[in-house]
Amino acid sequence: MKPLREELWFNVPRRRDYLNITPQVEEVVERSGIQHGLVLVNPMHITAAVYVNDDERGLIADLDDWLERLAPHEPTSQYRHNNGEDNADAHLKRQLMAHQVVLPITDGRLDLGPWEQVFYAEFDGRRPKRVVVKAIGE
Amino acid sequence: MKPLREELWFNVPRRRDYLNITPQVEEVVERSGIQHGLVLVNPMHITAAVYVNDDERGLIADLDDWLERLAPHEPTSQYRHNNGEDNADAHLKRQLMAHQVVLPITDGRLDLGPWEQVFYAEFDGRRPKRVVVKAIGE
Amino acid sequence: MKPLREELWFNVPRRRDYLNITPQVEEVVERSGIQHGLVLVNPMHITAAVYVNDDERGLIADLDDWLERLAPHEPTSQYRHNNGEDNADAHLKRQLMAHQVVLPITDGRLDLGPWEQVFYAEFDGRRPKRVVVKAIGE
Repeated sequence: MKPLREELWFNVPRRRDYLNITPQVEEVVERSGIQHGLVLVNPMHITAAVYVNDDERGLIADLDDWLERLAPHEPTSQYRHNNGEDNADAHLKRQLMAHQVVLPITDGRLDLGPWEQVFYAEFDGRRPKRVVVKAIGE
Repeated sequence: MKPLREELWFNVPRRRDYLNITPQVEEVVERSGIQHGLVLVNPMHITAAVYVNDDERGLIADLDDWLERLAPHEPTSQYRHNNGEDNADAHLKRQLMAHQVVLPITDGRLDLGPWEQVFYAEFDGRRPKRVVVKAIGE
Repeated sequence: MKPLREELWFNVPRRRDYLNITPQVEEVVERSGIQHGLVLVNPMHITAAVYVNDDERGLIADLDDWLERLAPHEPTSQYRHNNGEDNADAHLKRQLMAHQVVLPITDGRLDLGPWEQVFYAEFDGRRPKRVVVKAIGE
């Protein structure tokens, strides 16, 4: 079975947002024809993250508040990286969120628990960015 | 070599606890017959994590204190997710802990450093929950 | 295609440091001969991390300050693990950094976005430590 590699592109209009990309990842997995394997979902940019958690609006707001508390955007001058840039916090928020996921493929399907949903977390949006989905197996 | 998928089930009597599951993961790897590959250990619930760190009681107590400091359970009303629920902190703690691990399989064994131990971290226990172990390779 | 396993060894003279190991990981991938697959880069020690982020000195200084703020080394007596040891903070910093990465191999190359760089983060140096690189695929 040939491994499949696809890119998902996003252009998020806000600085930060959280997009449920489970359907797109499922489509790549089904298109791969792989019956049993692993799929990596990895942002190719270092100011974004892919994570698995609940698709519940209250939780997403809590998560955003929490990330702002632990790695605040303002004042931008607190970061040495912000020398002509203002996105140091985005590089840190991504680390807090663990930035990538690997998931099982079983019987040709993305093998998720009942509440597991795959999210793209944008921390420095307003430009096109991409995620690589790489599926391997049999 | 057929990929192997197994589930490990836990019913932790406390809200939070940290269980060393290295022997169970090793058993799955050995049962798979895979000589060289990768094994994913992923909680199928979004209020738990799998991580690798030291099996030392002092450190586990430090870790629990630290998670409570950075993503406190109380007051539960601080989280918008806690509208009929009280587990928003569990969803955040899981992110801090990076929630899943992938480990090498080499010569038919789980290929760990001398102090690497695989843990199941429960952040919202008192009910049955599971971890998927998926091994692929040759 | 036989999976490849190699170790990278480091002996960092300072307690904490951040080393760009992208060239070494690329060399392992190219030596493997694998055209399409996944590569795991995992520290075999539990006071270190492997992560992907920017190779920019200001950001690395920000990251180190931020880790010290969220999981401080001093006072060492604040941690129960530090009973004859002084590295509890290193075990926590590693969790914040998500401690390991999996990356795609495509057309025989490590498949990174333009700014993605692989780092070894040492949090308890001054002794030899190693990272396992395990590549699987076709």
